[in-house]
Amino acid sequence: MDETQLIDRYFRDLGANRGDVALGIGDDAALLRVPPGVELVLTTDALIEGAHFLPGAPANSLGHRALAINLSDIAAMGADPAWALLSLNMPAVDESWLRDFVTGFGALAARHNVALVGGNLGRGPLSITVELAGLVPTGHALRRDRARPGDWLYVSGSVGDAAQGLLQPVVTADGSSDARYLRQRLEYPTPRVELGEALREIASACIDVSDGLYVDAQRLLRASGCGAQLQIEQLPLSDPLRRSAGEEAWRTALSGGEDYELCFSAAPEFKDHIDELAPKTGQPISCIGRLRRESGITLKSGNSVMQFSPSGWDHFRD
Amino acid sequence: MDETQLIDRYFRDLGANRGDVALGIGDDAALLRVPPGVELVLTTDALIEGAHFLPGAPANSLGHRALAINLSDIAAMGADPAWALLSLNMPAVDESWLRDFVTGFGALAARHNVALVGGNLGRGPLSITVELAGLVPTGHALRRDRARPGDWLYVSGSVGDAAQGLLQPVVTADGSSDARYLRQRLEYPTPRVELGEALREIASACIDVSDGLYVDAQRLLRASGCGAQLQIEQLPLSDPLRRSAGEEAWRTALSGGEDYELCFSAAPEFKDHIDELAPKTGQPISCIGRLRRESGITLKSGNSVMQFSPSGWDHFRD
Repeated sequence: MDETQLIDRYFRDLGANRGDVALGIGDDAALLRVPPGVELVLTTDALIEGAHFLPGAPANSLGHRALAINLSDIAAMGADPAWALLSLNMPAVDESWLRDFVTGFGALAARHNVALVGGNLGRGPLSITVELAGLVPTGHALRRDRARPGDWLYVSGSVGDAAQGLLQPVVTADGSSDARYLRQRLEYPTPRVELGEALREIASACIDVSDGLYVDAQRLLRASGCGAQLQIEQLPLSDPLRRSAGEEAWRTALSGGEDYELCFSAAPEFKDHIDELAPKTGQPISCIGRLRRESGITLKSGNSVMQFSPSGWDHFRD
Repeated sequence: MDETQLIDRYFRDLGANRGDVALGIGDDAALLRVPPGVELVLTTDALIEGAHFLPGAPANSLGHRALAINLSDIAAMGADPAWALLSLNMPAVDESWLRDFVTGFGALAARHNVALVGGNLGRGPLSITVELAGLVPTGHALRRDRARPGDWLYVSGSVGDAAQGLLQPVVTADGSSDARYLRQRLEYPTPRVELGEALREIASACIDVSDGLYVDAQRLLRASGCGAQLQIEQLPLSDPLRRSAGEEAWRTALSGGEDYELCFSAAPEFKDHIDELAPKTGQPISCIGRLRRESGITLKSGNSVMQFSPSGWDHFRD
């Protein structure tokens, strides 16, 4: 099977059918219609075998994750996802793997109205790079650098599950339900696209939690030129994480990556509004601390200051 | 050195400084302003070690090529390149390699007014994926599927040089100038961006020659539902290719990939206009044949039909 046949069979109609795609897969590039009054949002993120997943990782999950990690970036900008490109390097053609991969990718793409409009297939060690374009009303994107001292700091869903999921055995039908839950959170992260859109007029700054809550919150704070005091009791820990990690659960929640939750700040006047968002968007939103002028993060448990060394994920740290 | 430091040192200000970049590298995604009256053009292409280049390939050339192969796609659409994302997987941090890589990438980006607005660094076997966005006046993009019987078929520059360059020893200062020329054509392809823009109101269809002229011309013809008769004497063969490949030069020109020239069709009324384009855009444009209703490609040398089996590059052909 040659590249054209592979594309026809697995990729040509993947994802949503959007009216703003003037020309999709099959030419030198895709042609897209951008409506007036919006800014274009562009991001890319990759999954590399050996770095982001182990050999033998389920293809359906990889298809889902490769798109989800990009949807999460678009969500963190408060944007609506629109068009994706997929660059897939594979050591060989494995049609059963490809079927599972596009099923995982396609289901998530359809759910978020994303059309696959182009890409590239190459032979090499398995790696998956997705580029995602979204749209956001001009001037209304969520950025990292607009938080202010006095704002509250929030995080969606629960954090630390995916990192704990890495330590679980591969899911089997008879695995414990905690292990299944934690693996599922790792293998099928839920990008918070609806929440990002809902935060457009509310959040002062936003970032997605991909490398660990502590490290990503620090990035938001640094970009905004402020610091924060966080209350450990307020960290949203799932019951499976509490049972699995015990006393260390809060450290896992702060340092573990791959959560793909949103961490955002908002002025105090929006507190009630944000409390109302949780039931609307279907996941909890926890207020975990407050921003201050002084830089850095202070962690408190009750009135005690806790010591914590962040070990957020970084591929290139020495 | 961590990922953020790498980005700050090598990537943050790479390429052109464009006024339409509302937010570049450093947030979850980039924010770009799309002017009215244009369509967005999106493409991606990758270079994978072992598939597209050998271990030890010069980093400066890889930086150039990774962008050039995407610029070539944008050129084939008749579009103006604008914003790039770069996903770079590296086995380790090698700062000397990185310096050379960004020098090659940055020089070509600056030449074509491309801003690097985002990307992703990951640890893994060396592979380079670039996503490039361009803009084209609405309804004026060059496509593959609008050629008509009776149109002339053209190709820019010369073809086969890069494929012959693959057979040359690595360039040394004392290498033959033919070998140097051919290697240069492989390692530093020139995307025909200005030509693509100039063809917007002229060409009926266009494709970039990445997998070999025969195969790519066939793609254009198939998409347009026609065939063509090509005259071998009209193929643009460089003198170094003629000297290096001898009697086989025309076969190399038809089958060799990585030329990154433009192959396009145009109605006969534009013939004079196209002849005038060559001096303006700085490279020859050769009329290599004529389109007809009957599908397939007939190759003629004088009045004799020549036999030729295309062996254009395909990573996944069995």
